[in-house]
Amino acid sequence: MTTSDLYKQSGVDIDAGNRAVELMKSAVRATFTPQVLADVGSFGGLYALDSLPPQPVLVASTDGVGTKVKLAAQLGRWTGIGHDIVNHCINDILVQNARPLFFLDYIATSKLVPTAVAEVVTGIAEACQAAGCVLLGGETAEMPGVYVDGAVDLAGTIIGLVDRSDLLPRPQLMQAGDLLFGLPSSGPHTNGFSLIRRVVAERDLGTQLSDGRTLADALLAPHRCYLAEIEHVRAAAIPLHGMAHITGGGFIENIPRVLPSHLAAAIDTAAWQIPQLFQLLLEWSGMQMREALRVFNMGIGMVLVVPADAATDLRRIVPEALLIGHLEMRRDEPVCLS
Amino acid sequence: MTTSDLYKQSGVDIDAGNRAVELMKSAVRATFTPQVLADVGSFGGLYALDSLPPQPVLVASTDGVGTKVKLAAQLGRWTGIGHDIVNHCINDILVQNARPLFFLDYIATSKLVPTAVAEVVTGIAEACQAAGCVLLGGETAEMPGVYVDGAVDLAGTIIGLVDRSDLLPRPQLMQAGDLLFGLPSSGPHTNGFSLIRRVVAERDLGTQLSDGRTLADALLAPHRCYLAEIEHVRAAAIPLHGMAHITGGGFIENIPRVLPSHLAAAIDTAAWQIPQLFQLLLEWSGMQMREALRVFNMGIGMVLVVPADAATDLRRIVPEALLIGHLEMRRDEPVCLS
Repeated sequence: MTTSDLYKQSGVDIDAGNRAVELMKSAVRATFTPQVLADVGSFGGLYALDSLPPQPVLVASTDGVGTKVKLAAQLGRWTGIGHDIVNHCINDILVQNARPLFFLDYIATSKLVPTAVAEVVTGIAEACQAAGCVLLGGETAEMPGVYVDGAVDLAGTIIGLVDRSDLLPRPQLMQAGDLLFGLPSSGPHTNGFSLIRRVVAERDLGTQLSDGRTLADALLAPHRCYLAEIEHVRAAAIPLHGMAHITGGGFIENIPRVLPSHLAAAIDTAAWQIPQLFQLLLEWSGMQMREALRVFNMGIGMVLVVPADAATDLRRIVPEALLIGHLEMRRDEPVCLS
Repeated sequence: MTTSDLYKQSGVDIDAGNRAVELMKSAVRATFTPQVLADVGSFGGLYALDSLPPQPVLVASTDGVGTKVKLAAQLGRWTGIGHDIVNHCINDILVQNARPLFFLDYIATSKLVPTAVAEVVTGIAEACQAAGCVLLGGETAEMPGVYVDGAVDLAGTIIGLVDRSDLLPRPQLMQAGDLLFGLPSSGPHTNGFSLIRRVVAERDLGTQLSDGRTLADALLAPHRCYLAEIEHVRAAAIPLHGMAHITGGGFIENIPRVLPSHLAAAIDTAAWQIPQLFQLLLEWSGMQMREALRVFNMGIGMVLVVPADAATDLRRIVPEALLIGHLEMRRDEPVCLS
């Protein structure tokens, strides 16, 4: 018996792993820039730090896509969750004003299916390339007995760069009267899927929504990346006091993370049209709007805090930005809904 | 019904997650250095890059501990696998001559047990602190339906720094006659556990080995970190041509990764005492030594390639370094065993 036979009997297929690596290599290489010094397969990925700002600060974040992977696995649609994890991570460091340098992925499953892994990594590479972010490394693990049969988990780590003087948020600049603008989300992004899966368990995922998409399409729409919009805002020198990425915990938990303790966010929930998908989730679950805003983004994936006199410029530069509220002196809760 | 009740019914316990975060915070903070600009709980971790070398290169690696987590879960011993993941990652970038800056962890499970998660993170933080590496961030995910009941997965990402002129390996300096020194491992480290678990499935994990440890202790001994030894080698200006971290794929796959194509590694497998644990694994599995060297480290966790005239100095600086072979002109395979 050879080692790989023995290994295969233990549930680990070395050849399948090698095939998956071949399939994804070209997509990964397409993300490489002159800063990358080693090729796929080195012990560690190498990224040369050139043209650094005066006070360089690395911004790092690790996250997973959560149980959205269950729905992706159920429908056999893998590329989208690759976009999900990258864009989620980019947005997480974007709120600190960092631009992404590179990303590393972690994919683990009970039984390696090379084509599925290659689709996930291709999705990751596409999203990286779109954001000018290098896919510098990653790990694919086959873990029989740890994952439920057919289940996959996907996590990733992003490293970005910002000059210390450009760091956001700037709570010391925030004041009552500052405006809150929201940028539309593309769907539930990567949040609330344990709840969503329970709510839609008895529903037909092929149900057509009013925009012609199926329920499955709407649920799996990849997490949107806000890098391009924020780069336009920066280029136009619009003063940003802070940004909140609306992820797990929704409006209620994420907006206060960037506010000083004496200010509250007053949100006008009538200021934007709640997308049909979220309306259905409310209807099917019996949740109230306030509860939903603690779990879902409800159609707004990124919130910008700007001084009132920047509103006109912001609307000109990012026409889709919606005025959804303002800052006021805090009395009770850090987020007030009306 | 409140959101967290609804969430709890879907298998996600937000309060348990919050308790776990509280428990691990102090261990995490103990790893912080003046370079860390934000506290636990920010969107992304912030690491100020000061005192950079002239040509700074970041070295990044993501890895998991593999199915060693199954054994840890079976025995309810969590701290060790925290050390495992950190030391594995440190060694992976050490072979490129990088010193670790910071680490981020990813822990996922079917059902969050705050004390277990806190033990894992405490182990991670201990190993980080011992290596002067910041634990800058991480993610804990509860994923009902993805993980087998009671199963946990643990992965991590390390970011290190090296000057471009110090990068290893240096294959252009390697020549026939260079010596291979091995540094002892502390056990199987984090490799081959799907096979190990199959081989020991019918054995009593309480069996005492000749050194007094139980089989369970020997199997779960944390992955050793070689940072201190290599720092001594650097400080003594001993010329290193390359290093290979003996991980998955063993000697057979890892040593060739640092060699030029015209050279082979001649390994004298009689040069070191195979630890009893590996002897038992050979005996119980019926594997041959050559096969075992493709899976396990067999007692040698790190291999150093040095010019022949550096041997005396190396032995003086790192007394435990064992001469296990040399480089020779390659005829057939890149690793020759005798």
